[in-house]
Amino acid sequence: MIKVGVLGARGRMGSEAARAVGEAADTELVAEVDQDDPIERLVEAGAQVAVDLTHPDSVLNNIKFCVENGINVVVGTSGLGPAELDSIRTWLADNPQVGVIVAPNFAIGAVLSMRFAELAARYFESAEIVELHHPKKADAPSGTAARTAHVIAQAREQAQLGTMPDATTKDPDGARGAEVDGVRVHAVRMTGLVAHQEVLFGTEGETLTIRHDSYDRRSFMPGVLLGIREVPGRPGLTVGLDTLMGI
Amino acid sequence: MIKVGVLGARGRMGSEAARAVGEAADTELVAEVDQDDPIERLVEAGAQVAVDLTHPDSVLNNIKFCVENGINVVVGTSGLGPAELDSIRTWLADNPQVGVIVAPNFAIGAVLSMRFAELAARYFESAEIVELHHPKKADAPSGTAARTAHVIAQAREQAQLGTMPDATTKDPDGARGAEVDGVRVHAVRMTGLVAHQEVLFGTEGETLTIRHDSYDRRSFMPGVLLGIREVPGRPGLTVGLDTLMGI
Amino acid sequence: MIKVGVLGARGRMGSEAARAVGEAADTELVAEVDQDDPIERLVEAGAQVAVDLTHPDSVLNNIKFCVENGINVVVGTSGLGPAELDSIRTWLADNPQVGVIVAPNFAIGAVLSMRFAELAARYFESAEIVELHHPKKADAPSGTAARTAHVIAQAREQAQLGTMPDATTKDPDGARGAEVDGVRVHAVRMTGLVAHQEVLFGTEGETLTIRHDSYDRRSFMPGVLLGIREVPGRPGLTVGLDTLMGI
Amino acid sequence: MIKVGVLGARGRMGSEAARAVGEAADTELVAEVDQDDPIERLVEAGAQVAVDLTHPDSVLNNIKFCVENGINVVVGTSGLGPAELDSIRTWLADNPQVGVIVAPNFAIGAVLSMRFAELAARYFESAEIVELHHPKKADAPSGTAARTAHVIAQAREQAQLGTMPDATTKDPDGARGAEVDGVRVHAVRMTGLVAHQEVLFGTEGETLTIRHDSYDRRSFMPGVLLGIREVPGRPGLTVGLDTLMGI
Repeated sequence: MIKVGVLGARGRMGSEAARAVGEAADTELVAEVDQDDPIERLVEAGAQVAVDLTHPDSVLNNIKFCVENGINVVVGTSGLGPAELDSIRTWLADNPQVGVIVAPNFAIGAVLSMRFAELAARYFESAEIVELHHPKKADAPSGTAARTAHVIAQAREQAQLGTMPDATTKDPDGARGAEVDGVRVHAVRMTGLVAHQEVLFGTEGETLTIRHDSYDRRSFMPGVLLGIREVPGRPGLTVGLDTLMGI
Repeated sequence: MIKVGVLGARGRMGSEAARAVGEAADTELVAEVDQDDPIERLVEAGAQVAVDLTHPDSVLNNIKFCVENGINVVVGTSGLGPAELDSIRTWLADNPQVGVIVAPNFAIGAVLSMRFAELAARYFESAEIVELHHPKKADAPSGTAARTAHVIAQAREQAQLGTMPDATTKDPDGARGAEVDGVRVHAVRMTGLVAHQEVLFGTEGETLTIRHDSYDRRSFMPGVLLGIREVPGRPGLTVGLDTLMGI
Repeated sequence: MIKVGVLGARGRMGSEAARAVGEAADTELVAEVDQDDPIERLVEAGAQVAVDLTHPDSVLNNIKFCVENGINVVVGTSGLGPAELDSIRTWLADNPQVGVIVAPNFAIGAVLSMRFAELAARYFESAEIVELHHPKKADAPSGTAARTAHVIAQAREQAQLGTMPDATTKDPDGARGAEVDGVRVHAVRMTGLVAHQEVLFGTEGETLTIRHDSYDRRSFMPGVLLGIREVPGRPGLTVGLDTLMGI
Repeated sequence: MIKVGVLGARGRMGSEAARAVGEAADTELVAEVDQDDPIERLVEAGAQVAVDLTHPDSVLNNIKFCVENGINVVVGTSGLGPAELDSIRTWLADNPQVGVIVAPNFAIGAVLSMRFAELAARYFESAEIVELHHPKKADAPSGTAARTAHVIAQAREQAQLGTMPDATTKDPDGARGAEVDGVRVHAVRMTGLVAHQEVLFGTEGETLTIRHDSYDRRSFMPGVLLGIREVPGRPGLTVGLDTLMGI
């Protein structure tokens, strides 16, 4: 049994994670910490792994505390850029037995989608992304779509593909969408939807579509549990769930 | 047997139409006219119906000739606006036994899509359109997508639906696409594709998607044949294949 | 304000309906009746409309009680065949001012799908249905898929279409699925899914797809509310939400 | 310039391949051989690579001739089972500098689909396949669908996943489709379609769909050209385009 503490345990994602840890056969929920609770509870409870699902403002301090106290961390909170990752590496250098896994997206289907997009990109003349979300989302395109566009662009560059064919000369209202690293990205916002993405590839006479539908926060839990199981055996910093998945 | 002449008979669409007319059991191809041929051939051959698949520059003169000579016309050429339709009505007033059918799109699936979009629109909070075409297309969005957005907007207005929910505050590169009569339209351009359209509707807990895929110019021929069969019994001007289809 | 009582108010669908009735601006929840409660509460509370979301065993008696007490009924419970509908008609003959609406499916998107399938069927050589549900479903195909196949078959017969083209000579394991009234129906069962259906139509060079995705029981509530609003003005028996929707 | 001969050069696939070889910048068409032509032409023309797109009856003799004459072979003809592959290996043992590539499917999108299905399979509780083809196809399911089911089944076994959840108790007409190695496969046959496949994966709260659409025989040509370019540097027998693609 892996002893797990959840940071942000009363938030939407955190409460779901606490439930999942409690239900899995090989993990034990030993501490639930929210914003007014002392983080020292993790130590008192003997947590081997902490799951951080808090807020961009607090995540870095939480990681520092855990690393210095020998607790492995699985991070699902967003907002960690290159500078923050460097700080984490510095702390880990002093605590080389500790592991930290930072995953921008814990939905296994989303991680697979992105990896498959990266593998497929070099074989197709055209690539575009359509992401579809509930209408309460504030930013367009989604972070996952922007990252997917980025890995497609990199793979095209490595394969020395040129720009995609596009004879559009008349598009007065911007129907062709956003261009992210040279890849067109379209964002649909619609009542009834949750979080969905289609990556479309086309070449002479054929198309390939990779679609991911996320209906529920529960879809993140298999990825969170995978991180919890893997982090004790992976000292140092690991970025991205794909590394753990061996794809 | 309905005697049919094709105008634009050596063009891409026209040659396909000539073939379809020749193959159908109840139609007979009696004249093939292209740009250097005299249109009088229609009269000599005793054509009862002319199919115009020529060019915006010539279509109006062709229709005038046919109406004045008592030949019914099925028009697939684009470029007829309200003023041109009024001219046609004037000519028809002097030749009340003649019928003219003008159809902006002869693909039966496209016509059904548009009609279904119109019927569904009032029942959903959100509606968006994604159209996908080959990369040689010059304009975005497609004419069919723009017309579909228009009929959706009209149906929403009649049902007194307000604006669609959309919390987007950050969209620096235009991922939300074009706004046509208040309906978001997205255009994908991709090698391998032909002509495709998805109309998406969403409300609490459910979505409805109407997708039309056109793989081939042959997809227009059932609609052209329907027009040929119906036009002798429909004196006056008829706009849109949907009227003939009784939907 | 329409005064509404919910029968089966503590069931999954019933509790959702009670919530929806309580939240809508023009309806008032005046009675919640479950299996151990006396149905007379509806009368005491002055309910104008009863919503029955109970069980095939109890629905018919509930309807009888309501009709005899002058309460209009919206019925979402399944299990009413031709014999049961005849009984309801008899009771209504004695109470001609009362209305009963029986709807096998309250998801507006599902009702529209079925109607659009009926309208489209005559224009396509081929039609097949793929329905996709969660893996806890006991029956295959779904009732909605079977009904959709039935309306497609009827429309094809009226249009005097023959059998669909199918050159399959070798299908040892039944990959071609079930044949319902001559229409092939395929059932997918999958963790993560809720209730989804695709109706596919194909003819020369084009296909048309009507897809309905239901993610949530809440998707039935707009249809239930529509029934509640319409039933007081529709004396007699009405079968199907499509009649109310004017499609 | 790689000197290429095409066997079956007047067949549907062969003529397309001859055209593609003639048009590519780095390949030269030096021989076109059809059923009544002597295969020795390949030798006379100095072909370095032969592309076999003939018939199950002739393919094995063709390969033998090429291997014994030091000509590399790219094989797109179907019908080579384990026994035939063993024969090829024997001939190659005597001619160790020669390469033979046997590919059951040259559409790059189909090859990627199958590989992605294999990689994804271990992460999902449920997996099913829907393949969709033109109605002239004689066998159901398609060979590609059966192979995809097989690789999914193998990946599930390696990951020690059990059987998929499925509560179906009532399926009188076989709507659940064929079971191939424990994976459900559904076959749609429809006018207007060409060759399409959807692999669906589902787990708690999310689904992943990999869809391949092949509209045209031209879709096989990038794969054929890839084989031609790679086979001179790959002595021995290579099965499957995926090996060449490094995925």
